[in-house]
Amino acid sequence: MTAPFPLAPGSTIGIFGSGQLGRMLALAAARLGLNTHIYAPTGPDSPAAQVATEFTTGDYTDEAAITRFAKSCDALTYEFENIPAQTAALAQSLKPLSPSASCLDVAQDRLSEKRFISEKAGVAVAPFEDIKSPDDIKRFMQSINGACVVKTRRFGYDGKGQIIIKSQEDIDAAWAQLGDKALIAEAFIPFEREVSVICARGKAGQSACYPLIENVHRHHILHTSTSPAPRDNPDAQKLALKIMNALDYVGVMATEFFELPNGSLMVNEIAPRVHNSGHWTQDAGCTDQFEQHIRAVADWPLGDATPKHSVVMTNLIGDDVNNWADFAAEPGTAIHLYGKQEARQGRKMGHINRPQK
Amino acid sequence: MTAPFPLAPGSTIGIFGSGQLGRMLALAAARLGLNTHIYAPTGPDSPAAQVATEFTTGDYTDEAAITRFAKSCDALTYEFENIPAQTAALAQSLKPLSPSASCLDVAQDRLSEKRFISEKAGVAVAPFEDIKSPDDIKRFMQSINGACVVKTRRFGYDGKGQIIIKSQEDIDAAWAQLGDKALIAEAFIPFEREVSVICARGKAGQSACYPLIENVHRHHILHTSTSPAPRDNPDAQKLALKIMNALDYVGVMATEFFELPNGSLMVNEIAPRVHNSGHWTQDAGCTDQFEQHIRAVADWPLGDATPKHSVVMTNLIGDDVNNWADFAAEPGTAIHLYGKQEARQGRKMGHINRPQK
Repeated sequence: MTAPFPLAPGSTIGIFGSGQLGRMLALAAARLGLNTHIYAPTGPDSPAAQVATEFTTGDYTDEAAITRFAKSCDALTYEFENIPAQTAALAQSLKPLSPSASCLDVAQDRLSEKRFISEKAGVAVAPFEDIKSPDDIKRFMQSINGACVVKTRRFGYDGKGQIIIKSQEDIDAAWAQLGDKALIAEAFIPFEREVSVICARGKAGQSACYPLIENVHRHHILHTSTSPAPRDNPDAQKLALKIMNALDYVGVMATEFFELPNGSLMVNEIAPRVHNSGHWTQDAGCTDQFEQHIRAVADWPLGDATPKHSVVMTNLIGDDVNNWADFAAEPGTAIHLYGKQEARQGRKMGHINRPQK
Repeated sequence: MTAPFPLAPGSTIGIFGSGQLGRMLALAAARLGLNTHIYAPTGPDSPAAQVATEFTTGDYTDEAAITRFAKSCDALTYEFENIPAQTAALAQSLKPLSPSASCLDVAQDRLSEKRFISEKAGVAVAPFEDIKSPDDIKRFMQSINGACVVKTRRFGYDGKGQIIIKSQEDIDAAWAQLGDKALIAEAFIPFEREVSVICARGKAGQSACYPLIENVHRHHILHTSTSPAPRDNPDAQKLALKIMNALDYVGVMATEFFELPNGSLMVNEIAPRVHNSGHWTQDAGCTDQFEQHIRAVADWPLGDATPKHSVVMTNLIGDDVNNWADFAAEPGTAIHLYGKQEARQGRKMGHINRPQK
């Protein structure tokens, strides 16, 4: 159960998940002389498996395989929040898991997340309601006197499993589409802008926060992240750390906020992992979020989170990646591609970091 | 024989050699969505094999294995210059090899290298002589009227296979130790400082040069590289490009110089590959030498070679690496470790890049 922290070079960090976040975590670990072992249901061609020291294909419910995997590692983490709670608990019983299974438990369910943030951490979120029937939605809209967004409590990302509700017809349509799933309704927030912060917290409770990021979405998928945000909001890091302290969080966490016209912040959601809105850190002249997460998981001192450059990150979605040669020819533009074979529509294929003008 | 240049993401670059240079090349290629296949006589625990997409253990003279390896790749390169000429020629007959087999041929033999640089490229080197007997050394010392260094023509690195000769006793001792190998003698140069430049050259003859680097050696092993050098010598890049143009070189090349008290430069040696004195580029806010080499080999546009920060690179040799936790705690210090299991004396285990004060 105890690993020799801090993990010495040559130790192995196990990562659940084999997408681009796992890939960039594995690359960062390699730079520090740390090995990675990826566990995922996907094949050896998946983004993280291609670059990790070891790779196990296995289902997230295969307890025997997960036990073997955990035992082969010195510490464990994950690149996405949809690992079953039981798997996380099993893994944590075998080797130190950061962020902990309880952080995952909070963050993988929008309802428990909203309750934790507002009630335990005392940080503002949009008004929300547990939804068990079409009438619950109707009552919620009456209580907030306006439109709302109905979302699945689990497994949503990039706008999937979300429907904006303005009328009874919308309610009926939403119920037809999502009524078989556990749902939450959140008040529709007429925000001024979407911002996020990436913070790291270590095992001793020490923390390091990157500057405020301004995010622009297209078709519900992150399009650009600009760091630092053209206008700061100094509350963001304080609120994020309040949540992280309440969770006794270890690792990098992203906190996404809506900023209201009066400048106040409401948490949209947290991600218990490295996050797309932190990819600019790779080319900002400081420790990047991937290395920062690895440092926290391995109980190394946290790295420098003060960027030397301003950066605009742009996601390459689907066919965007076909323009790689143009991006490669742009002076000062850094290209990061994820090794995905097929450029399907809406699929994150890579990103570019450009100097902010 | 022809690959679809520029190599699209998902293509595979084959690399001969599995040391730290191959490792950092593989990590840079992964960032660009390019796969790597490492070929080396070492095992899967070797530095580059740990992070590459594919790895083949094989001898550099195993023509069948090399043929299979080359056919599995879209383009080929190498991380060190001691691949047999026949192997390079075979590889080049199957897939594009950059730098070419003829560059390797010139650079792997100190005599052909010195002759090429001085006679073909017209760039100054220390006076040198082909040595076939102890008397040849004596005659050479008389001709230069001073001390010399006797070196093996091939396979020398980090001061190995080099003896300073000041007397007849030294000649006898050197002959007893090295007399069975092909030798060269070079005039001992009372240099003011050792400097190097890292330049890249593309398939169309375009080039990109990093600033002058000042190098300090300890026990014949590179200790620190400072970029930019505290005092510039603008001839260095011009001379390096003269040599690279004469070689029709493709890729990153390091040129090491002695700077004489009058400021003139003499080439000490060239390395047809990425080079230890270019490791600072990883944390200088520009395209690093590893990505730059991959870009040249893949025929992508060359990246930005203008650093945004000044950096001092310090090698971690042998036990130095045991202080990793101290380096990790230094704000602004970037750590790069090579995944080598055993910290033997004189072995390069990693390096750190610190901001230049």
